[in-house]
Amino acid sequence: MEKKVIITAALAGSGVFKNQNPAVPYTPAEFAEEAHRAYKSGAAMVHVHAREPESGLPTSNVEAVRAVYDAIKQKTPELIVQITSSVGRTFEDRMAPIIALRPESASLNTNTMNFSYLDRKTGQIVFDSVFTNTFTMLQDFGKKMEELGVKPEIEIYDVGGLDNWLLISKQGFFSEPYNFDFVWSVVGGQKFRPIIFASLVQMLPPNSNFTTCGVGIDQFPAITQSCLLGGHMRVGLEDNIRLPNGELAKGSWEQVEWAVKIAACLGREPATPDEARKILGLRKAADSKK
Amino acid sequence: MEKKVIITAALAGSGVFKNQNPAVPYTPAEFAEEAHRAYKSGAAMVHVHAREPESGLPTSNVEAVRAVYDAIKQKTPELIVQITSSVGRTFEDRMAPIIALRPESASLNTNTMNFSYLDRKTGQIVFDSVFTNTFTMLQDFGKKMEELGVKPEIEIYDVGGLDNWLLISKQGFFSEPYNFDFVWSVVGGQKFRPIIFASLVQMLPPNSNFTTCGVGIDQFPAITQSCLLGGHMRVGLEDNIRLPNGELAKGSWEQVEWAVKIAACLGREPATPDEARKILGLRKAADSKK
Amino acid sequence: MEKKVIITAALAGSGVFKNQNPAVPYTPAEFAEEAHRAYKSGAAMVHVHAREPESGLPTSNVEAVRAVYDAIKQKTPELIVQITSSVGRTFEDRMAPIIALRPESASLNTNTMNFSYLDRKTGQIVFDSVFTNTFTMLQDFGKKMEELGVKPEIEIYDVGGLDNWLLISKQGFFSEPYNFDFVWSVVGGQKFRPIIFASLVQMLPPNSNFTTCGVGIDQFPAITQSCLLGGHMRVGLEDNIRLPNGELAKGSWEQVEWAVKIAACLGREPATPDEARKILGLRKAADSKK
Amino acid sequence: MEKKVIITAALAGSGVFKNQNPAVPYTPAEFAEEAHRAYKSGAAMVHVHAREPESGLPTSNVEAVRAVYDAIKQKTPELIVQITSSVGRTFEDRMAPIIALRPESASLNTNTMNFSYLDRKTGQIVFDSVFTNTFTMLQDFGKKMEELGVKPEIEIYDVGGLDNWLLISKQGFFSEPYNFDFVWSVVGGQKFRPIIFASLVQMLPPNSNFTTCGVGIDQFPAITQSCLLGGHMRVGLEDNIRLPNGELAKGSWEQVEWAVKIAACLGREPATPDEARKILGLRKAADSKK
Repeated sequence: MEKKVIITAALAGSGVFKNQNPAVPYTPAEFAEEAHRAYKSGAAMVHVHAREPESGLPTSNVEAVRAVYDAIKQKTPELIVQITSSVGRTFEDRMAPIIALRPESASLNTNTMNFSYLDRKTGQIVFDSVFTNTFTMLQDFGKKMEELGVKPEIEIYDVGGLDNWLLISKQGFFSEPYNFDFVWSVVGGQKFRPIIFASLVQMLPPNSNFTTCGVGIDQFPAITQSCLLGGHMRVGLEDNIRLPNGELAKGSWEQVEWAVKIAACLGREPATPDEARKILGLRKAADSKK
Repeated sequence: MEKKVIITAALAGSGVFKNQNPAVPYTPAEFAEEAHRAYKSGAAMVHVHAREPESGLPTSNVEAVRAVYDAIKQKTPELIVQITSSVGRTFEDRMAPIIALRPESASLNTNTMNFSYLDRKTGQIVFDSVFTNTFTMLQDFGKKMEELGVKPEIEIYDVGGLDNWLLISKQGFFSEPYNFDFVWSVVGGQKFRPIIFASLVQMLPPNSNFTTCGVGIDQFPAITQSCLLGGHMRVGLEDNIRLPNGELAKGSWEQVEWAVKIAACLGREPATPDEARKILGLRKAADSKK
Repeated sequence: MEKKVIITAALAGSGVFKNQNPAVPYTPAEFAEEAHRAYKSGAAMVHVHAREPESGLPTSNVEAVRAVYDAIKQKTPELIVQITSSVGRTFEDRMAPIIALRPESASLNTNTMNFSYLDRKTGQIVFDSVFTNTFTMLQDFGKKMEELGVKPEIEIYDVGGLDNWLLISKQGFFSEPYNFDFVWSVVGGQKFRPIIFASLVQMLPPNSNFTTCGVGIDQFPAITQSCLLGGHMRVGLEDNIRLPNGELAKGSWEQVEWAVKIAACLGREPATPDEARKILGLRKAADSKK
Repeated sequence: MEKKVIITAALAGSGVFKNQNPAVPYTPAEFAEEAHRAYKSGAAMVHVHAREPESGLPTSNVEAVRAVYDAIKQKTPELIVQITSSVGRTFEDRMAPIIALRPESASLNTNTMNFSYLDRKTGQIVFDSVFTNTFTMLQDFGKKMEELGVKPEIEIYDVGGLDNWLLISKQGFFSEPYNFDFVWSVVGGQKFRPIIFASLVQMLPPNSNFTTCGVGIDQFPAITQSCLLGGHMRVGLEDNIRLPNGELAKGSWEQVEWAVKIAACLGREPATPDEARKILGLRKAADSKK
């Protein structure tokens, strides 16, 4: 098993707000501060969804994303900054910041799915929506990212998402190593279950890495399972606003501290950003934004 | 293990045409004939997507569906006729035939997903589409079916589809037993894998039945796996136009004959329609269409 | 998936007698006849435990084994004859016939275990014994077989048996390909479960083949599962005296006929002995007994 | 998931000596001290193999075991003390201390197996032995324990061990709840694998608890997996002389501290001895030794 474990902090997401946890960053300065503390706590990468600084609403406006991206890079140049490709209504909207900023990595979503909010006790629907990721989008996003030298992190919300990627990958444009992220317990995707996790790992093609994230109370079980299976770990307020003991996290960095603890219990150590770059096959950081 | 195995024949589907296999039924008379031969071969149920008699295009026009439904019932009154709820663009379109005909059972889809056609060798996209089944639809279709006494067959295309149903089912309106259908290898859903199948079975709630269908060359492996695990079997030209030896099937009934053979190899026997009704908890056939 | 499936008939075993099924062979002539009929029905290999011709008791007496072996080879020269290494109390006893006859293949047992007979309904112990296969025996049997050019069939009665072999194999004397046999439902070993079967297959080293056998009513489910997973199939009166329908088998050959049927349902065809030799990496048949 | 997690410390075992780790207890006073520190660190139970005080050799001599047992109970009366039934060559030897001391719990072994020592890199056999646990012993030990009110902890070294217990349990003498311990990576039993662990949990009968222990470097991964799956955790120098970071443990208690940390990462808390008694269905502590 790889001794080094890559810890990613997903600082904000699109669906969590300051009224749930005041540590959620909205402004570039807040993002930069959160990212820096996550780095100091052991994270090698941050995953970023930019927000409108006032309202906190998610945005794919290039200048807004750039402001966040630059603020993080300025304060912590060594950190890997991964940008989402999930925000926006069209291919152009969703890809614009990635084309403009050429980050080292960006998320690549693999299946169309419900992405909703239900009351887990009563089954009542609170909010219902569809997250569209057709095969055409999977193909076009993937090709464009590879062309730009932006390493896709392949998001797997369901077993079928992996099968979608396996099919499209036959076109041959994805570069090795392949980096997967198993996402658990989104309402609309698969719930966290260790047996499915262990099965998914065995379905990956050779020369693959995997990390994981779990929503809400499944965050820490999911990253622990990943660490056990030789994978990496993603935490952050995007996925869960709390700590294992149920308290509000003071920031994504506090969850990073817990991830480091879990790694230590399993004999693993946080990778530095450069160690992470090597494992994930990212292009040299120095090439960014050229 | 239940000795009786329920064999369903999915006669036509929406995506298979006479130019692929001339036995695909388009007219009510063709449906009635195929259904009858399937019954004679061992099927207890037929699953029906009606077609426009000339073009063969799928339709949810109530009179078109009724014509097919009545033709089958007239020729083979004892057979269980299950109607799809997947055809049409709106809730009203998709539910209209079920409301009008009150069949004993109808399909209930559990997740929004890509539903496409790719070249499995090259990964090239031939046809790309989204099959929309929001939580609201899952809830509304399910509630309406239960209200009408139409037993839903819960279609699981991916692990997350089961999780969607498990969440909505907390509302409490689904009646026991719960009848699941694991669908494998749709392009957009999960590919057939025995380990995932065995895992899914262990995730079902108490008092559940399951059947299965697999697309293309996964049809016979999938139904064999189901039979082994104590489940039921769905065959039919909707899912696959061939026999295990690669020849074109002369009709869904010829696949039913193979299903009966598989059951015999595993010590199981085809259930009659009335035995199937008892297992699946269908209301008495005599109540149909009242 | 390999189209060809190797069917083995285990003609007699050590624990089944004519009073249970009169088709169990005791004499060389009976063995030769059973083997020939199995071959005609589709078997590529027979697995042999010799018996004392009068009492039917198992024996590892070299001349007794030779008589059976020669009778089979004379009547059906093309057939692969695999000899057990399980009969006898000492290393020398158990290995003597293999050293004397140099068959193309012999069984190699991987773990010490209870090997008993309990009433499956009441849990009452009818007969209690231990089947001893220490690491030293696994090592010494394996080395000697490889030295003689006798390909071991590695018998796995439990997950730990595979781990035992994986450990000993680090010594480096086993030749590729590795041929495993998963044995299910011996009282003392693991019961047949599809999820464990699918997991075991994923634990095998590269360049491995596997077949399977199941005791009693698990015989046909186990070989069906193996066929589905791309493996081979072992039937025979050693494992089960009945057919899937519960009737007594008229001979191992009648179970071979069922295995051929199962293979056909899954699009696979029986391998000839020479095709089997190629898959299993057996030395040329012509070299036997030199 | 049960919030409380029962931590057991296996203080000494039979195969680990002071030259490997000086903290291994030999004398009653050393056992009492180790037990007390384990309790203070969060353990609810200690698992005890007594040693000859000078040589450290394992013993089932009743007076030797009593001396250790009494020393522990005197220093830490509230602690649950579980005694092994694995030491000795005969039924009488192995059961004598349990009959004499009537501890609240004792281990019950479920399968005959190799129990050896191999070099994990080279596959060379260092020490080869068989651990004999016939069906008769499983039955007789189990019955006697239940008769004495000593709750068996059912040790599962391999999937087949669970099947052995499931068969014998049909005799009906085991009392609920059933308490299992999955033992991983003994040389001769199954190696630690998350997918098998998750599968085993699903095979347990209703009203079961489970804990786990893993040998050597699998100790912490195994207990982490158990904690994740809702089970309990056993650590201790019997299983592993080190900490997750590779350093020698200062005592079993230091491993208990790590187990507590793991539990906290997963939102669980150590059970007190009395909470553990309730979960495991142990008779009241006050009844001990009557």
